[in-house]
Amino acid sequence: MMLKANDPALLTWVNVPAGSDFPIQNLPFGVFRRGDAAPGLCSAIGNYVIDLAALASHGFFDDLQFDRQVFSQPSLNDFIALGKDKTRAVRQRLSEILDDDRESWDAKELAEYFLIPMAEVQLLLPVHIGDYTDFYSSLEHATNVGIMFRGPDNALMPNWRHLPVGYHGRASSIVVSGTPVRRPKGQMLPPGAEQPVFGPSKRLDFELEMGFIVGKNTSLGHSVSAAQAEDYIFGLVLFNDWSARDIQQWEYVPLGPFLGKNFASTMSPWVVTLDALEPFRVAGPVQTPEVLPYLHAGGDRNFDIQLEVAIKLEDGRETTVSRSNFKYMYWNMCQQLAHHTVNGCNIRVGDLMASGTISGPSSDSYGSMLELAWRGERPLPMPDGSTRAFIEDGDEVILRGWAEKDGVRVGFGEAAGRVVAEW
Amino acid sequence: MMLKANDPALLTWVNVPAGSDFPIQNLPFGVFRRGDAAPGLCSAIGNYVIDLAALASHGFFDDLQFDRQVFSQPSLNDFIALGKDKTRAVRQRLSEILDDDRESWDAKELAEYFLIPMAEVQLLLPVHIGDYTDFYSSLEHATNVGIMFRGPDNALMPNWRHLPVGYHGRASSIVVSGTPVRRPKGQMLPPGAEQPVFGPSKRLDFELEMGFIVGKNTSLGHSVSAAQAEDYIFGLVLFNDWSARDIQQWEYVPLGPFLGKNFASTMSPWVVTLDALEPFRVAGPVQTPEVLPYLHAGGDRNFDIQLEVAIKLEDGRETTVSRSNFKYMYWNMCQQLAHHTVNGCNIRVGDLMASGTISGPSSDSYGSMLELAWRGERPLPMPDGSTRAFIEDGDEVILRGWAEKDGVRVGFGEAAGRVVAEW
Repeated sequence: MMLKANDPALLTWVNVPAGSDFPIQNLPFGVFRRGDAAPGLCSAIGNYVIDLAALASHGFFDDLQFDRQVFSQPSLNDFIALGKDKTRAVRQRLSEILDDDRESWDAKELAEYFLIPMAEVQLLLPVHIGDYTDFYSSLEHATNVGIMFRGPDNALMPNWRHLPVGYHGRASSIVVSGTPVRRPKGQMLPPGAEQPVFGPSKRLDFELEMGFIVGKNTSLGHSVSAAQAEDYIFGLVLFNDWSARDIQQWEYVPLGPFLGKNFASTMSPWVVTLDALEPFRVAGPVQTPEVLPYLHAGGDRNFDIQLEVAIKLEDGRETTVSRSNFKYMYWNMCQQLAHHTVNGCNIRVGDLMASGTISGPSSDSYGSMLELAWRGERPLPMPDGSTRAFIEDGDEVILRGWAEKDGVRVGFGEAAGRVVAEW
Repeated sequence: MMLKANDPALLTWVNVPAGSDFPIQNLPFGVFRRGDAAPGLCSAIGNYVIDLAALASHGFFDDLQFDRQVFSQPSLNDFIALGKDKTRAVRQRLSEILDDDRESWDAKELAEYFLIPMAEVQLLLPVHIGDYTDFYSSLEHATNVGIMFRGPDNALMPNWRHLPVGYHGRASSIVVSGTPVRRPKGQMLPPGAEQPVFGPSKRLDFELEMGFIVGKNTSLGHSVSAAQAEDYIFGLVLFNDWSARDIQQWEYVPLGPFLGKNFASTMSPWVVTLDALEPFRVAGPVQTPEVLPYLHAGGDRNFDIQLEVAIKLEDGRETTVSRSNFKYMYWNMCQQLAHHTVNGCNIRVGDLMASGTISGPSSDSYGSMLELAWRGERPLPMPDGSTRAFIEDGDEVILRGWAEKDGVRVGFGEAAGRVVAEW
């Protein structure tokens, strides 16, 4: 469904710098705090956050018939739980308020009450995440990792092309962009050693991922079909699934990743709605062999979202180490959600389902240092003359993502985190 | 620390039937609802629940200096978050109120206001679980499963004796005892087949586990030592980690169990405090090789808790299929918690950490049908003449657990669930 709020011809009376992630066609949702005030919900336009409670207090949403208190919460959950009819109407209303052609609105005169320079606020983790699931849905990533650990003949496990492999992750340690990430300590087995040792991870890595936020509850015992799955997806975020490869490698057989992952994951503060991404829908890769009927989603279920990872050194110099795209995903979000619920597992508003590392076909599009530097064999050059096989203390890893078409750029901002040895 | 409330000589003026799980020395915590009333916190004595908000309204806890509203919540979380000094004082106060020797209390006359027959209330899931972790800490279980899947020479993975293997599970689908469990559907690879099929699981199993409820938050980046870990453990529950073996076997390599587990897990309604279990502390198995220093807990960290699993047929006949004990755990709770946080992963009040299947040394002490019937090779006889290799529709699986010493039995009640094909 193409929405009025997505019209590339829309112009806003707010000054939006060229190349901004937040034109009038985006209008993502987040949570902010200014100074010591209580947190509240916001959207974004150019370099401003839009204070939704302030707009509500001036009556801009009164006809939409919901309790305006949803805008004065510390998370988007209650707002999302209103349902897509309401949240879509709010985005459409924001589009009208900011539209340069709408003379009837008195919004411009009230701008100082609801537009706040983004630099003056703190953006918080936008949702309360009940459960976090991480998939493993990039064919290129699964193949690369498989080649490294099992050789080219056994790279993909027999189940990989039949189902979107996934596992449960830790919700408590998901942090918003800008939160420092402490290098984890743990057990690892040094190469050639017979006994494990304990210490700080020496192979700290990022994983370039996107995630979607569940928009609707289901009851235990009920499933969501792949065709209906988008009704249960509110929006998308950038997600860095930090990974300590040495800890992970020693612990993960047979029950999967645990301490190698759960020390921290970094999420973007902005949730870009599935509605805003509608113009960027594309077909996904052909799936061979054909998937079981419950995984048939039909239609174009991938999205053309450009992704980049940059490493910013302590001296402030930054270098882009990966350029990938969300469209490469072999398993799409509808299939992930249908698979997740096919056994009756219930999902809740605010749950996060992440894609797994998004690697593209070329070696500069890989989504982790493990792949980019090929297990340390091809270290990446840094602007200060040093090289990186993995992430070092002081490095800031910055994920960026945006979709672009017809002169409109719908972006996600950043998911950034600096690695520190100690707090 | 031995507490006054644990004194085996204590007698109560409440009628407690012989063999009850809930003598005056137990006083577990839970959440109940009567009719359409709002849920609230309770303890248990004999066949009664103790309405804690009712006691609070009569001033019984006023000197303990906390907001009595914690007793009128739908979960124990706010109460637990008061800290062990307060929750211990509440249990001690309950012990005094119910003590037959305390003439000064006017509690007996108020009994009708705070003692409610257990049969008249609904017991609810006692905690809001932020994150649920499942360990794999029984040597016998890991060995049995390893023999079945990899043969006796490679039964235990190289990491198993060096760290308590664990993985993240699904919090949303944890239900309280008595909730029906729907047989999950999913993908599986039939024996000898080359392509997976979709359908109801044919190998539905229970896992006899216990779990502990986290009693204290930590901050991201901080660890809890094994020696201090008990300060972070509020109490224990019975836990059935239902498992669909056919779904699990096809999906679990390389990232661990997912849909084979997350369709449902059944928890007991009562959280028995670590304090109440103090008299039942015992030494754990000798750990060889010696564990790394961060896993040194010192002292006796296991607990002698007898465990049973019964299958109750639709005709009402019941047979006990397993008799095990929590004391068999190779890795104790302190080691689990220290390991979980050693990388800086934060924990929150209400988090659940489960033991993994608790199998004992003898074949009638195994904690799953997979082991008891040895992958279907030795089906168990049922009272109606049928046999069971796995759990069938209509079967109710009932976990029970209790500690017993000096004539005092401190029990957990039941964690029960009946398997249904459809709701």
